[in-house]
Amino acid sequence: EILRAAEDLLDNTPKPLAGKRAIVTSGPTREDIDPVRYISNHSSGKQGHAIAAALAQAGAEVLLVSGPVSIPDPHDVTVVNVICAVDMQQAVDRALPADIAVFVAAVADWRVDSQASEKIKKDKSGKPPALSMIENPDILAGVGNGKKRPALVVGFAAETENVVDHARAKLAKKGADWIVANDVSEENNVFGGDANTVRLISAHDDEAWPKMSKEDVAAKLVERIAQRFETVSV
Amino acid sequence: EILRAAEDLLDNTPKPLAGKRAIVTSGPTREDIDPVRYISNHSSGKQGHAIAAALAQAGAEVLLVSGPVSIPDPHDVTVVNVICAVDMQQAVDRALPADIAVFVAAVADWRVDSQASEKIKKDKSGKPPALSMIENPDILAGVGNGKKRPALVVGFAAETENVVDHARAKLAKKGADWIVANDVSEENNVFGGDANTVRLISAHDDEAWPKMSKEDVAAKLVERIAQRFETVSV
Repeated sequence: EILRAAEDLLDNTPKPLAGKRAIVTSGPTREDIDPVRYISNHSSGKQGHAIAAALAQAGAEVLLVSGPVSIPDPHDVTVVNVICAVDMQQAVDRALPADIAVFVAAVADWRVDSQASEKIKKDKSGKPPALSMIENPDILAGVGNGKKRPALVVGFAAETENVVDHARAKLAKKGADWIVANDVSEENNVFGGDANTVRLISAHDDEAWPKMSKEDVAAKLVERIAQRFETVSV
Repeated sequence: EILRAAEDLLDNTPKPLAGKRAIVTSGPTREDIDPVRYISNHSSGKQGHAIAAALAQAGAEVLLVSGPVSIPDPHDVTVVNVICAVDMQQAVDRALPADIAVFVAAVADWRVDSQASEKIKKDKSGKPPALSMIENPDILAGVGNGKKRPALVVGFAAETENVVDHARAKLAKKGADWIVANDVSEENNVFGGDANTVRLISAHDDEAWPKMSKEDVAAKLVERIAQRFETVSV
């Protein structure tokens, strides 16, 4: 604690986002099937947590809404821990209004409609239990098209093919200013790994960034965010 | 290493299972839906790893087949890491013959039949993608009813209701000598927790053990295993 306070005193880095409020989502969501089983995904939370840390470093007041991850909370960030997509959406809604929202979490598209309260048993049919799935709320689209829309809304898109086409389609549909698209096909080893290869895609631009650490992706993205708030009066 | 060697030299604990070969499965399995998503369960591997450690402590030569867990490998145990049920079954089959097999892993009952090589996209129907599920191999039953059946086959059953009835049904069907049944309903907080409340169920007996640490469950189970090998010529 004393060390942290000393570091803060000695921290001469510029605070271009001082006075700005940011919401970041990170990690996977986990959707229970029954008390034993769940559906989830391979997101480690490293990229989202790095972005939350970089925003705080740049002076923003940051609220991080995180799914279940095994990495430590970033410094100087308020963390709200959630499990499933519905809880994540509620936590984000409660955190609005904000100037900046960056949606990095890998939110499950679907959840089980009527979650079983007892463990689902195999029956003799040799057939799987019929799971009735319903679509999860689209948290990015809800905020991007919503009444309390932050000035800057950034979505992440994990893609395995046609990365740019898919990202552009998402931009319009979800009311986002930028989509950070990364190719998570197996050869890139993004999930759980420490490096990331992304493209920053807006309505008119498409920047392919070289492969870099997730911390460097975070720093570069926050640099772009700071530039945006310098040059555009929002 | 030197410390461990010194500990081994000083280890005066009895070795009732010296010369016996044991296979233990532990942890969850993870069944990929596509490159991003998977189905898994809440098993931490703590109970299975504790049993592998206790068997080694009692002198057995132990092979631990573990699904994806975040806990350390036990000492003096050979660990084979696997992800999904089919791989776990192959690792167990390769490890036979053995004198003792204890199946603690929470194996997914189902896997996705034709795993997608690209991320499955939402379409406009608002309906979830149709996942064709097929039943996973029943590893316990395969070994319990198999040609290379170990002298002692023990299964674990995580149940949320009718614990004893379900366990007895499993005994016969799976060719197991004992079922260790635990009630994983939410109030017991078994998954990820450090304590466990189990019943040791055989064809003629049903012992309810008091709530104890997973290490103590392991020690007590290995005590029973050692007794069995003392009194029954198998």
